[in-house]
Amino acid sequence: MYFPGMPAPLGRVVEMLASLPGIGPKTAMRLGLNLLSRPAEDSQALAGALKELHEQVGFCERCGCFAEQGHCQFCDHLKRDASVICVVEQPVDVLMMERGHGFQGVYHVLHGRLSPIDGIGPESLKLPALDRRLAAGVRELILATSATVDGEATAHFLARRYQTADVVISRISRGVPEGGELEYLDEHTLSRALDQRVLWERAQP
Amino acid sequence: MYFPGMPAPLGRVVEMLASLPGIGPKTAMRLGLNLLSRPAEDSQALAGALKELHEQVGFCERCGCFAEQGHCQFCDHLKRDASVICVVEQPVDVLMMERGHGFQGVYHVLHGRLSPIDGIGPESLKLPALDRRLAAGVRELILATSATVDGEATAHFLARRYQTADVVISRISRGVPEGGELEYLDEHTLSRALDQRVLWERAQP
Repeated sequence: MYFPGMPAPLGRVVEMLASLPGIGPKTAMRLGLNLLSRPAEDSQALAGALKELHEQVGFCERCGCFAEQGHCQFCDHLKRDASVICVVEQPVDVLMMERGHGFQGVYHVLHGRLSPIDGIGPESLKLPALDRRLAAGVRELILATSATVDGEATAHFLARRYQTADVVISRISRGVPEGGELEYLDEHTLSRALDQRVLWERAQP
Repeated sequence: MYFPGMPAPLGRVVEMLASLPGIGPKTAMRLGLNLLSRPAEDSQALAGALKELHEQVGFCERCGCFAEQGHCQFCDHLKRDASVICVVEQPVDVLMMERGHGFQGVYHVLHGRLSPIDGIGPESLKLPALDRRLAAGVRELILATSATVDGEATAHFLARRYQTADVVISRISRGVPEGGELEYLDEHTLSRALDQRVLWERAQP
């Protein structure tokens, strides 16, 4: 969106905001004008936080989660069971899993998933580190890759890779999401939920 | 939205993004993660642009539009008719007016509008500068405040303030917006459009 007479510094902010996902040119313009109408300290604060973002947020050396330095808080946590590893695709998936509050094991982030169509093979995933962790002894490996074609393929690949290792391999369940009404669900989810039905006693939370 | 285990630097970016209009906590999280997943240069570039925003964008000394230094490009433009002043509420309104490409006069930004309910009186508006401009001789004053109760009150106030000055005072027209279907318009707009109908010959663009 071109505005004749727009000051160039505002234009630069708007252009960069518009490069973010879900932010169109109009929204970017509104955000830029909002920042300009607020005290200079607000823009400075956001600028400072952005500057520090990549400087301060890295990945855990062991599991690949977000970490501010060295190991993440999950790997370092004394009460967590390091013999149960939950494998996810991306660091953000760990944040999502933690929202559930139930899991007391540790994580391993692949930083990707197999995708032959995009030319992403096993060599792109953080597998050597996972190999080492399993070689050191792990009780259970929970495959929590996404329920997509690629995520499923990645889970299959991992299950085959570690089938000879002395480890229980499991996969997160699939079915009707909490609060899901059957009326609005796709047929694949429903047929999966029927196939993988569990005994009534086990289904009680 | 609280994410256990979210790195603090990411949290700071997300919190500040969520303070922008129309950006909820979920969107802010998505934007923060997107920035984190992109090269550090992108965050640095946005940080730099934000830092310069207030440093480099100010207001025209004469009319109050956005200006990078001294006078704005409209006041300094030799081909513009400085004897026709279009009065608007905010600097952004000038950008909106300029998108129409038709106006060849200059602007005056009030930096606000009368709003008794919010305690905003004439002393909050940039009126002394407008008084001086009119005293120096102006042919027409176009009142382009918004078509809201406050904007209308501000227009009335200005029309009364300058009624004795030697100047033609006009108001931007109100009616059906371009592309507007009668079916979806409110009754006030329609009755205004009927009241202020113009002769067919004048209505042709």
